[in-house]
Amino acid sequence: MTVYESPIRDFQFVLHELLQVSEVSKACGLPELDVEVIDQVLDAAGIFSNEVIAPLNAIGDTRGCRLDSEGKVSTPTGFVAAYRQFSESGWCGLGCSPEYGGQGFPSVIDSAVTEMLSGANMGWAAYPGMSHATYVNIEANGSAELKAQHLPKLASGEWAGTMCLTEPHAGTDLGLLRTRAVPVGDGSYEITGTKIFISGGDHDLTDNIVHLVLARLPDAPKGVKGISLFLVPKFQVGKDGLPGRHNGVTCGNVEEKMGIHGNSTCTLNFDSSIGWLLGEANKGLAAMFVQMNHARIMVGITAIGVMQAAYQKALAYAKERVQGRTAGNPANAAADPIVGHPDVRRMLLTQKAYVEGLRAVALWTAQLSDTQRLHPDLVVRDQATDFLGLMTPVLKAMASDVAVESTLLAMQVYGGHGYIRDNGVEQHLRDVRIIGLYEGTNGVQAMDLLGRKVLADEGRRLATFLQVVSAFVDEHGGVDALKAFTQPLGDLIGEVEATTRIIFSDAAGNAHTVGAAAAPFLRLVGHLVLAWMWARAAVIALGKLDSGDPIYAAKLSTARFYYQRLLPETLALCAEIRAGAAVVMEADVELL
Amino acid sequence: MTVYESPIRDFQFVLHELLQVSEVSKACGLPELDVEVIDQVLDAAGIFSNEVIAPLNAIGDTRGCRLDSEGKVSTPTGFVAAYRQFSESGWCGLGCSPEYGGQGFPSVIDSAVTEMLSGANMGWAAYPGMSHATYVNIEANGSAELKAQHLPKLASGEWAGTMCLTEPHAGTDLGLLRTRAVPVGDGSYEITGTKIFISGGDHDLTDNIVHLVLARLPDAPKGVKGISLFLVPKFQVGKDGLPGRHNGVTCGNVEEKMGIHGNSTCTLNFDSSIGWLLGEANKGLAAMFVQMNHARIMVGITAIGVMQAAYQKALAYAKERVQGRTAGNPANAAADPIVGHPDVRRMLLTQKAYVEGLRAVALWTAQLSDTQRLHPDLVVRDQATDFLGLMTPVLKAMASDVAVESTLLAMQVYGGHGYIRDNGVEQHLRDVRIIGLYEGTNGVQAMDLLGRKVLADEGRRLATFLQVVSAFVDEHGGVDALKAFTQPLGDLIGEVEATTRIIFSDAAGNAHTVGAAAAPFLRLVGHLVLAWMWARAAVIALGKLDSGDPIYAAKLSTARFYYQRLLPETLALCAEIRAGAAVVMEADVELL
Repeated sequence: MTVYESPIRDFQFVLHELLQVSEVSKACGLPELDVEVIDQVLDAAGIFSNEVIAPLNAIGDTRGCRLDSEGKVSTPTGFVAAYRQFSESGWCGLGCSPEYGGQGFPSVIDSAVTEMLSGANMGWAAYPGMSHATYVNIEANGSAELKAQHLPKLASGEWAGTMCLTEPHAGTDLGLLRTRAVPVGDGSYEITGTKIFISGGDHDLTDNIVHLVLARLPDAPKGVKGISLFLVPKFQVGKDGLPGRHNGVTCGNVEEKMGIHGNSTCTLNFDSSIGWLLGEANKGLAAMFVQMNHARIMVGITAIGVMQAAYQKALAYAKERVQGRTAGNPANAAADPIVGHPDVRRMLLTQKAYVEGLRAVALWTAQLSDTQRLHPDLVVRDQATDFLGLMTPVLKAMASDVAVESTLLAMQVYGGHGYIRDNGVEQHLRDVRIIGLYEGTNGVQAMDLLGRKVLADEGRRLATFLQVVSAFVDEHGGVDALKAFTQPLGDLIGEVEATTRIIFSDAAGNAHTVGAAAAPFLRLVGHLVLAWMWARAAVIALGKLDSGDPIYAAKLSTARFYYQRLLPETLALCAEIRAGAAVVMEADVELL
Repeated sequence: MTVYESPIRDFQFVLHELLQVSEVSKACGLPELDVEVIDQVLDAAGIFSNEVIAPLNAIGDTRGCRLDSEGKVSTPTGFVAAYRQFSESGWCGLGCSPEYGGQGFPSVIDSAVTEMLSGANMGWAAYPGMSHATYVNIEANGSAELKAQHLPKLASGEWAGTMCLTEPHAGTDLGLLRTRAVPVGDGSYEITGTKIFISGGDHDLTDNIVHLVLARLPDAPKGVKGISLFLVPKFQVGKDGLPGRHNGVTCGNVEEKMGIHGNSTCTLNFDSSIGWLLGEANKGLAAMFVQMNHARIMVGITAIGVMQAAYQKALAYAKERVQGRTAGNPANAAADPIVGHPDVRRMLLTQKAYVEGLRAVALWTAQLSDTQRLHPDLVVRDQATDFLGLMTPVLKAMASDVAVESTLLAMQVYGGHGYIRDNGVEQHLRDVRIIGLYEGTNGVQAMDLLGRKVLADEGRRLATFLQVVSAFVDEHGGVDALKAFTQPLGDLIGEVEATTRIIFSDAAGNAHTVGAAAAPFLRLVGHLVLAWMWARAAVIALGKLDSGDPIYAAKLSTARFYYQRLLPETLALCAEIRAGAAVVMEADVELL
């Protein structure tokens, strides 16, 4: 069995048919991005994912990353060679600007490639993924000199990057961080402190690693208003632009964790390490959030890649494993492949409906970031900014939660064989579990959505989004063959509006309302977006049913499954939200 | 922090106040089981669990079981000594008959002890757990000679036991199994074949291991009607009753798996191993199901133990971890423990409501098995048999699914720290994940409930159970302070009845109806039982609110949380069931 097969046809459906990437890109001033070019990128990335890094996924898990007695971190066997092939083929610069040696592809294409790489080997893919997030940050916040010095190296993949936020006592609450930055006098700073949980914090893939580090300047205000962002290379960069002497950044530990053993998660000690201010002093958190928002979208997409890999395994096993007779067959019939059993079919379709639906949500979100950055029309850009703000937490949290549920189902299809290491499916659960926890826990995402993105503007952004979905319902509501989608979607819009009003009303009287409602509210909005995407897919599929391509019949039947078997969860979510905060907060802590 | 603390007070609440075990036991002819005796057992088992085996849980995970070059399997460091202490203290015989050296405690007490052992160290606890299930089987099916030879050794813990069903090509579908039994002529049989996934299949804890093996006699009918059950010792038992020469049972492999590394999961090769028929020829599956049904209850209880352990860790962390200000506190206030944040409270209360509710369900189920076995009144026994049949699959599947959800939430409370091995919480997820897969996957449990327990008797058993719950609603429906429970519980009874009628009606026309509805139907019935248990707990708590014991206020507020935040899932489940089978089965396999 193939370890991983990139779902090229579904990427084509989403990119060409659902999101019309080529046309939208032209409107954004990228005229050369026609369908053939996109297909070439997809095919090449698919081959690299399937053939080069997917075969390294199991060894990445079993061998893991190691810190030797000299303080050097090594990645699993084969990772270095695969990375060299990847970077030398120009993949690191796919989404980077041609100004810095990149290929200038929009984020929506870079995201599709990221999904394939992650599905093939999440631990490996996180190295170039984090480097690109670092590129995005320096491009947004760096001085001309820092950009010239670092961006070409990140675009070529010669150097890697990290984001250093967390400290032992400061995770979600970055206001508590203690790492210090002291001005040297020549424009540089000495950075001292300990950062933990640094993904790709040290490794043997590149000549240098560019750490972007949150720290406090002397006399900085307390809390989050006194945090600045610094660029701190592993090796100081000489006048020749090459890595020179060691910069006092040492790896104190490589964490033993549940999964993604192929990716080094490091404790980094900075000891008077020379760094450079990125953006303005004391505005480091806002600067870092350029990278964080990018990373949240990318890890959401990563979750989708892992779901896809687990689903493929489960589907192949269900077609191959013979066990029990299918209902309705005669008593003396031979046993059938388990894919014929309705409960197995339920588990497979749940995975399929979520992974394909979320792929559409994710690539649309990435497309929004391109539109926000590139579209000539300010009104269009502003709406993209609004929707991107809503979708970033929804994608990150919903995809990571659903990925856990889906990989659990993939294991379940295998029965006891799913619990055995060699079958590879349990690794997907262990790997993907991190995504709900890092780059802001899913609880943080939920508070970001409901508190900062919905309540903060009194629901304006959400209302605009609901209008877009309503317009879709109005446009297609008259088509009988689509009523199974447009009617429940219209009902759901009403439910979201009503539930949001209740939250607004309750929040006025109870400070805990938002926190108590946040998690189910995020999932409710996630279903709204998924339902909209599946209805849009159904519209397209209905028009092409006679084309001879079986994907359209599959899209229609998966859309029906989503609407009838998964969307009903929204009934429960609305009831949970309506329960209010009192029932969550009434018990004294000592009674827990 | 304590690794594990046995929840003694909650056991007391369930055993003494909710289930009135002492009184019910008296009615069953066990007059000596008063509250003090039960409390002594709970305390002693709690101390053993907390102090002896909980400290071995992490090393069991990291060191695992090993198969050496001579074919010997060793358990992790400390397991042998702990087992010796356990067996020498008489714990192996707690639920065994005094006739065979046991202590004669009912299953409901044995189950409470099993929960504590499993919460402390699931891998370790599975050895005596499986041995006791073997005891139950031999007691039910064995000849007087086999009983006399084996039961005292199992009761004392000198010997262990296993159940050997699965073969590489035969898991759920035991009709496919190939292991053969050939009569020797002296009443014994030669057993030859390969069994996989045998829990505790080989180890260094005991002098002998008694394997109960499903195999085919020559000329046996095809399929499940040609399966017989054999007792096959690891070492042949001599005339002196002691283990003698090796019986040709070899361990071919110890599986590398996701979790429960402390428990050896073995491939066993039987090569003309001498065995003895247990029960009648070709009726082996029914005989094995005595043990299987016992095992399903025990693994459900195991899941609850692991949930409890994970919940305790998450709660302790949430009280200790300071991060972010609680809503409503002034902007310059110091950060608070995260237990003050509503979303963290939601995650903790979800775990608490499920673990305590399921504990009540599990111990009631164990009590039903005692009543079925011991009660003098045939009518009472028959009803216990009916309810036990319903509850066994519900407990096994619901507890194991919810345990995965709960341990995921426990990790989530820890944030990124939950993903790190050293914090111990991720082990609970990896360990508990097996329970949904073994002893019949949860899909098999769902089919057992809906197909064999509900449809097969045209809903008679379920209707009787609903009448019992209805009578509870009628009894307490007039109490205003209980209306928040009795009204939704009454509504839920109506929903279960209506949904079941729809399934009956659809099943007449579509053979896939049962399979498509089974999983959500099991969870729906699970919620019904949980809701009933939480309402019963609320009745008790309301009457004792002024007692000064804080458990009653906690029970009331957790009951409210369950009803308002968790029970609404039933809305979604009913809608999923009503969707019918077509949407699950319509797509061609090639479209998946």
